[in-house]
Amino acid sequence: MRNQSASFEFCSLLRQTTSMDVYLILIGDEILLGQVIDTNSAWIGQQLALHGYRITGKMAVADARADILSALETAAQRANIIITTGGLGPTKDDITRKTLAEYFGCGLMFHPETYDRIVDYYARVGRPLPDSARQQATIPERAVPLTNKVGNAPGMWFEREGKVFISLPGVPFEMQYLMTEEVLPRLRQHFPGRPLVHRTLRTAGEGETAIAKRIENFENALPPHIRLAYLPSLGQVRLRLSGQWPHEQVPPDAEARLQLEVEKWADELRGLLADIVYGKEEDTLEQVVGQLLQAQGLLLGTAESCTGGYIAHLITSVPGSSKYFAGSVVAYSNEIKTKLLGVRPETLAHFGAVSEQTVCEMVAGALDTLKVDVALSVSGIAGPSGGTPEKPVGTVWMAVGNRSRIIAQKHVFARDRVKNIQLAAIFGLNMVRKFLLNTL
Amino acid sequence: MRNQSASFEFCSLLRQTTSMDVYLILIGDEILLGQVIDTNSAWIGQQLALHGYRITGKMAVADARADILSALETAAQRANIIITTGGLGPTKDDITRKTLAEYFGCGLMFHPETYDRIVDYYARVGRPLPDSARQQATIPERAVPLTNKVGNAPGMWFEREGKVFISLPGVPFEMQYLMTEEVLPRLRQHFPGRPLVHRTLRTAGEGETAIAKRIENFENALPPHIRLAYLPSLGQVRLRLSGQWPHEQVPPDAEARLQLEVEKWADELRGLLADIVYGKEEDTLEQVVGQLLQAQGLLLGTAESCTGGYIAHLITSVPGSSKYFAGSVVAYSNEIKTKLLGVRPETLAHFGAVSEQTVCEMVAGALDTLKVDVALSVSGIAGPSGGTPEKPVGTVWMAVGNRSRIIAQKHVFARDRVKNIQLAAIFGLNMVRKFLLNTL
Repeated sequence: MRNQSASFEFCSLLRQTTSMDVYLILIGDEILLGQVIDTNSAWIGQQLALHGYRITGKMAVADARADILSALETAAQRANIIITTGGLGPTKDDITRKTLAEYFGCGLMFHPETYDRIVDYYARVGRPLPDSARQQATIPERAVPLTNKVGNAPGMWFEREGKVFISLPGVPFEMQYLMTEEVLPRLRQHFPGRPLVHRTLRTAGEGETAIAKRIENFENALPPHIRLAYLPSLGQVRLRLSGQWPHEQVPPDAEARLQLEVEKWADELRGLLADIVYGKEEDTLEQVVGQLLQAQGLLLGTAESCTGGYIAHLITSVPGSSKYFAGSVVAYSNEIKTKLLGVRPETLAHFGAVSEQTVCEMVAGALDTLKVDVALSVSGIAGPSGGTPEKPVGTVWMAVGNRSRIIAQKHVFARDRVKNIQLAAIFGLNMVRKFLLNTL
Repeated sequence: MRNQSASFEFCSLLRQTTSMDVYLILIGDEILLGQVIDTNSAWIGQQLALHGYRITGKMAVADARADILSALETAAQRANIIITTGGLGPTKDDITRKTLAEYFGCGLMFHPETYDRIVDYYARVGRPLPDSARQQATIPERAVPLTNKVGNAPGMWFEREGKVFISLPGVPFEMQYLMTEEVLPRLRQHFPGRPLVHRTLRTAGEGETAIAKRIENFENALPPHIRLAYLPSLGQVRLRLSGQWPHEQVPPDAEARLQLEVEKWADELRGLLADIVYGKEEDTLEQVVGQLLQAQGLLLGTAESCTGGYIAHLITSVPGSSKYFAGSVVAYSNEIKTKLLGVRPETLAHFGAVSEQTVCEMVAGALDTLKVDVALSVSGIAGPSGGTPEKPVGTVWMAVGNRSRIIAQKHVFARDRVKNIQLAAIFGLNMVRKFLLNTL
């Protein structure tokens, strides 16, 4: 341990905090032992960023009094908003609740309304009231309980010296419920800041660098109070426009005006990237394809070789997909390609299973065999073995078509087996989307 | 900010550190903004735990000098081993390297061997040498570089006052490489501790509580230096036996003797749970099923309704699966069940698509249509809609068979759509495994 002067030096390094700074504390042995992957931090970080708040630091500590107390101390030095998650489960709440009471120098009290809500909750989900119910309704005297309608442990809100401390359960959906319904609205009242609005467009099929080149002029024309963020994931890039009200004065219609302005820029961006934008916000490619099929009253089927059923899986992960998806022939062997999809043996012998000719015949066969209006086929070399100099690992042919036209494309994905399969599925679904929109 | 006496009080709360305690520091704005889900911490926590080390705390900080310095200060107060990840990318390494040099009170130096390795690395992967190469080979004078054979930023190892500081890149596979090849072997030399060995058995099909009841006597008979951990995930439970050498004296054959002892207990456990243990360590159900099929020279096919191709996807995610997997008919519509799988319209009309009769006819049809030796069929109601009082959401029928026998099972999985699909796949694969072993 360092001596006192070292601790003082350490404090002098701290940056000035702003009213929108947040410090996050994760409580729980399971996080430190690596038994749980912490997805809560990323979710909270994103949500706070969307509302103009900023996580400036994060700490994970064990379910231990001393560790929790020192983390609270550190956090309060660095931010005005301190959020803790975890440590409120029935086996652990003694230590967290007691430690919070100790930190705030108050006692614990039984909170009848919280108890009644917990009793109601268990009655509603038809499970017996656990012995811990009374204990979970016992909270520090200085806490404002935050009503948890999707679980039993309440959230807690504390205020001291202009700072806000929030304690949330670690179960992701309970934490998300409380953040959305209780914490963010209260934070907006407490630390309003200037209005901030967002619009996210989803693209598939082009990389970050290529997109940046295409929209260089658009980006240069953006006013300083509107920023563009690139959020890439496998085969997809989300483009998020964020506008922050640029003036000190915030009139009542500021947010609405800002929203209109951001939408205007989003419309322009959508126009510039019409060929790759497939949706907005939380849309997925498989949902968008499903909506198009349903709107056009068409039935889809797939004929999959290297994707091995993964495209069918994505499509059928969407509730209600049986309305527009009939099924798939996963033709991993050439025999099935021939027998069920009518691919001619000469085609396989002459051009190979990974070829334009084969995927086109697979589409024709799938239309017939599955009795569908539109079919997608994929055949490729997912790897790690099976590549040749002419057709290296990652080479994938895909085709989409109906009874009047069939279009094929070749891609080379130079990734590992699982990513090659995922990329083939994303590009395949995007081909179906464009085919249905007549833009392929 | 709190005053000096508060800082002193805060230090007095700290627990005594042990030589096996680790503090983890994640450096990077992207972690705080929630743009990246931190999977590194869980991986590092697990690996350290397997070797007897223990993460006692974790902090995430921005790419900022003051934040990194104060995190190092905090970490050094709490542990003897401090590991940082991230902040070494070409756009950021100025700040991290410079800050580490500042923390250790030394200058930066150009390290020719590291530079040569980076040049070699880029030549090997066939990419042009980036401008940052020289900068990435410039490290604090007190650092021992850790050779990164799978990327360009080297790891760094520092020692001061009996403590070890390790800086690793944030890219998961580079971090994992350096932890496995460089960090863990060095830590074992530095802080050996008593030998610790593990054996993990993988089970499918029974919950934690049911397993605990079955092996109660086994658990009670375990000696104090051998512990059993339950590691549950969806539809599966891993059982990990960990033995730690119980004596102060560590003879040269201690680890080998301990290994033998743990294996003896693992064998007993395997015997007690023979019906549900499918593998060990990193085995997956789809790999084990594949190995059995290959060993028996059999070809598998699937006929999937509610799983929508997910089982075929799992099987074909394994490299080389074309040797034992022919394909699948994803029969989402009843028409396909009838046309491709030969399910009789009367069966569907009388018993419904989700019934023992239907899944048995699906197996018979798949054996025929896909020309395979063994077939698995699944039909159920994944949800959220489609349930009835007799067949609620989550009801799944599945069957496995060859040309001489077909066996069907019914399960009710009361989860959401995606989890019901995943559970059906796990139980289906496990049925195939047992069928191949003649234990169904």
